[in-house]
Amino acid sequence: MEYKYLNNIAGPDDVKKIPEDKLPELAAEIREALFNRLTKRGGHFGPNFGMVEMTIALHYVFDSPKDQMVFDVAHQTYPHKMLTGRARAYTDDEHFGEVGGFTNPEESDHDMFYIGHTSTSVSLATGLAKGRDLTGRGGNVIAIIGDGSLSGGEALEGLDYAGEMDTNLIIVVNDNEQSIAENHGGLYKNLAALRKSKGEFEINLFRSMGLDYMYVEEGNDISALIKAFREVKDTDHPIVVHVHTVKGKGYKPAEENRENWHWHAPFDRETGENLNNWGGESYNSIFADHISERIEKDKSIALVTAAVPGAVGLGQEKREKLEENYVDVGIAEEQATAMCSGIAKNGGKPIFATNATFAQRVYDQVTQDVSLNKSAVTIQLSSSSVFGMGDATHIGISAIGLFSNIPGLKYLSPTNREEYLAMLDYSIDQNEGPVVLAVPCDGVNPAEYPVMTDFSGPVKYQVCEKGKEVAVLALGDFFNLGKNTAEFIESKSGKKVTLINPRFASGLDEELLDSLCEDHSVIVTLEDGILDGGFGQKVASYLGSKGVKVLNYGFEKKFYDGVPPQTAMKECRLDPELIWEDVIRA
Amino acid sequence: MEYKYLNNIAGPDDVKKIPEDKLPELAAEIREALFNRLTKRGGHFGPNFGMVEMTIALHYVFDSPKDQMVFDVAHQTYPHKMLTGRARAYTDDEHFGEVGGFTNPEESDHDMFYIGHTSTSVSLATGLAKGRDLTGRGGNVIAIIGDGSLSGGEALEGLDYAGEMDTNLIIVVNDNEQSIAENHGGLYKNLAALRKSKGEFEINLFRSMGLDYMYVEEGNDISALIKAFREVKDTDHPIVVHVHTVKGKGYKPAEENRENWHWHAPFDRETGENLNNWGGESYNSIFADHISERIEKDKSIALVTAAVPGAVGLGQEKREKLEENYVDVGIAEEQATAMCSGIAKNGGKPIFATNATFAQRVYDQVTQDVSLNKSAVTIQLSSSSVFGMGDATHIGISAIGLFSNIPGLKYLSPTNREEYLAMLDYSIDQNEGPVVLAVPCDGVNPAEYPVMTDFSGPVKYQVCEKGKEVAVLALGDFFNLGKNTAEFIESKSGKKVTLINPRFASGLDEELLDSLCEDHSVIVTLEDGILDGGFGQKVASYLGSKGVKVLNYGFEKKFYDGVPPQTAMKECRLDPELIWEDVIRA
Repeated sequence: MEYKYLNNIAGPDDVKKIPEDKLPELAAEIREALFNRLTKRGGHFGPNFGMVEMTIALHYVFDSPKDQMVFDVAHQTYPHKMLTGRARAYTDDEHFGEVGGFTNPEESDHDMFYIGHTSTSVSLATGLAKGRDLTGRGGNVIAIIGDGSLSGGEALEGLDYAGEMDTNLIIVVNDNEQSIAENHGGLYKNLAALRKSKGEFEINLFRSMGLDYMYVEEGNDISALIKAFREVKDTDHPIVVHVHTVKGKGYKPAEENRENWHWHAPFDRETGENLNNWGGESYNSIFADHISERIEKDKSIALVTAAVPGAVGLGQEKREKLEENYVDVGIAEEQATAMCSGIAKNGGKPIFATNATFAQRVYDQVTQDVSLNKSAVTIQLSSSSVFGMGDATHIGISAIGLFSNIPGLKYLSPTNREEYLAMLDYSIDQNEGPVVLAVPCDGVNPAEYPVMTDFSGPVKYQVCEKGKEVAVLALGDFFNLGKNTAEFIESKSGKKVTLINPRFASGLDEELLDSLCEDHSVIVTLEDGILDGGFGQKVASYLGSKGVKVLNYGFEKKFYDGVPPQTAMKECRLDPELIWEDVIRA
Repeated sequence: MEYKYLNNIAGPDDVKKIPEDKLPELAAEIREALFNRLTKRGGHFGPNFGMVEMTIALHYVFDSPKDQMVFDVAHQTYPHKMLTGRARAYTDDEHFGEVGGFTNPEESDHDMFYIGHTSTSVSLATGLAKGRDLTGRGGNVIAIIGDGSLSGGEALEGLDYAGEMDTNLIIVVNDNEQSIAENHGGLYKNLAALRKSKGEFEINLFRSMGLDYMYVEEGNDISALIKAFREVKDTDHPIVVHVHTVKGKGYKPAEENRENWHWHAPFDRETGENLNNWGGESYNSIFADHISERIEKDKSIALVTAAVPGAVGLGQEKREKLEENYVDVGIAEEQATAMCSGIAKNGGKPIFATNATFAQRVYDQVTQDVSLNKSAVTIQLSSSSVFGMGDATHIGISAIGLFSNIPGLKYLSPTNREEYLAMLDYSIDQNEGPVVLAVPCDGVNPAEYPVMTDFSGPVKYQVCEKGKEVAVLALGDFFNLGKNTAEFIESKSGKKVTLINPRFASGLDEELLDSLCEDHSVIVTLEDGILDGGFGQKVASYLGSKGVKVLNYGFEKKFYDGVPPQTAMKECRLDPELIWEDVIRA
């Protein structure tokens, strides 16, 4: 492929030099570049293919970075990156590594924020507008938000506040009729009515929040978009431009199966088939199968997701089979959490399953709506781990510090397949209070030690191997690391090391810790999370006055950005040999 | 006052026995009982006076607890408590202690949840409805939410999700045209248009979210309300009943000054004057005066609040003087936080000032929108302390554990007036990243040691007194306790004790800690917060391998419910004498 236009674009000024009637050729080149990267590397597919024309029109009309664009989630910004000096990261395989998957000010001045979570763009844009007005810098502020993100509380708060502002602010709603999976929420009926009436329907969510409104039906027609954006440029008040686009536009498999092609692994362009086989058992499939079986027998169970059913292995077919017992609230984690509390209150058995990074939204809801009310809600966290960590916007290693310190909540950290299922079943069936369950991420391992099934009552750690001198408390995901560490130390010292599975990140087995002090001089703790606020520090605090040495291992308090697990672990001395060195020193 | 009706009401069944035309007499009695308690005890005034008629009508029509009512915030439930067997807690001074200020299932079966934060009722009610349907228990579910609470993300998520439900759910919007202070957000223009048109205005927030809708103008007319509630009782789909009420109805000063009478201290009924004089300097007045002065000179400062300007001493007059430099976003903490990030990005100097308990809503926004983006936002927390702790719904002692572990964020804990102002000024003027500033709560104390003004660079603790053997690290609010403890230990041991003001809750002064190990054998840490996840545990972890004993003092991980500070402190051995005992033991 020759990138006739794209190769000559160093920034938005170069886009503006292209005659308007040639812009569709640029669009075709962008799609080719997207194919080049996505077939080989994978990434967000549908959002980017749908945004090609809109991105060209935005940069044709507005003057970034003087005019400031905030892309919600920022997973749809591959075309934006191509038009702001980063095209070769898509056209040239050797430069794939030069861009991340989201906007990031460290990559380009055209990226306003480092963003990866949904529903933040409007609020951030109101701030840019306010800052602009206070400092007199001038320029347009444009938020670009997908329909799926509109159901998030932060987005709705942002729209509402924008509706009382009296200054330039443009909110482009990219309506492709789809969230990650299908949309959920009453407002989507309104968007449908607005699309059907070409924006004329009298009931209008945006107008009801005090915002001006314009509708553009041809969201993949560059000229229509240019016309619309020219109309709103330099507006003196907030206005919503509701644009109807086609998710995955330009690739038939993606247009036809929007959920599967929201994000996609490397694939064959001709057939749409995955290049790699992702077979084998995963915790996703284990959960999906187990919960489906349980729901078949117990209709009081309610599985709740917030727009990421894929994160727990629930494809469309599996979801439909769950009928009334499956609820997707859309991108609305606060709603999911509080709803679960209500379900529990009336005798249902709710499970809120989501990614650890998105659960960060609901500390207050878990505390107030759930835990203070002793509601027996299971909150299952995926990816609360160094394994599978992506950009700094999607890291789950804060989960222990965030949730384990909430009063009245049990944080369970299973170490293997059987223990995971035992904890899940315990949590579903108990009626005492909330449980956070951290799904293991270090592969599916079978149990090597007996598995407890009742996690009520006081915190009980499991002594897997009983030794002397040195004890290793290896939480959840890091149990295998702990086992390896104990074996390494044994091989070096010739003495049997005590190996413990703590099971609970939220509390101490004080009796056991006291007894360890009798014949141990060093206690090692390992956890798959940031050390500060986590599990090991509680152990160190409890043992602070006892005279035994405590060595805590976990991650640094920093934003790990695309760091491979092994690198992060080595940095933090999470390695049997390095731990052995520290033990000797202590 | 003779409570002819009220004294004979043991529960909602007794309300239903009263002829409809006699209900206004019951309303008058309820207002008398409210006066009886509120003049002497203080409490939420306006919300309860406005809800008298609606509460009677709700219990006249619905059958609680079979029909389940969820009151948002639950600060307007004094009449509800009177009609559900708890009247004497209002009519009889000796029984004042029998009720808390919010709904609480431990008080009554008619209270669905223990609630105190805003904007949760609709989501909780969707859960009750779902649980009801899964278990077949039947009954109506009714959420009662004030107009002020509608701007919160959780409420908007709840309304949106309710709009796709297909079952009984009644959402009563109690529209008294007022939040705590005035309302902020575009949706309030829509509510005004709906009120003006008696619900006929074609643009309708609730309908735009897929909800059915009904308007009731006479929100303080019991018969009109009974009629409306009878119409919607047993509805087979979600419906909003938008009711127009008068906040503070029945007491002229409260109707005329709704902000001052939202909550009110004990007062003289004739004059409306406070019974106690609340004079003297407070951190509220110090902040309000200081920030007003600073804004006068620097128009790039933006003070942002989320509906609680009173929490930082900003009455209406003071707010108006700040003009463009003051922003109230309404009850919308997520919006406030993200907006501040945008303001900082464009060169403004944002301060988000709120109560610690409400800041719990924005862990993700502080992490992602602010800290990951290195936005120089000042987040000022009031009441992050055991002092002034109220019901379990309003405790701020989780703040250190919640915020101090966020990467890239400085958590500053001033110990006195001058240090507070120095930290505030530093934070406003710096451009490095976010700062959480915990306003002291143990009274306004002057500085006794030199005050640092530059808090950039590495964490530096202040050695206030240099001794040997024992060192006391006394954070923020507990500096005076630390000083008293050091003095007590000195008086007992005859040896000088090292006294340290750590200043930072978010990091360690490793150099100093290392040097302490040289001539100290016991390190004591004190913090005004829950121990788990907090400051002291970081110290214990760091010193775990050094051979020095560490004693951490702070609060237990539990929901303190109306516990007096001195009691909570004694329980946790936060007392010089008890600490001395522990030091000796160690």
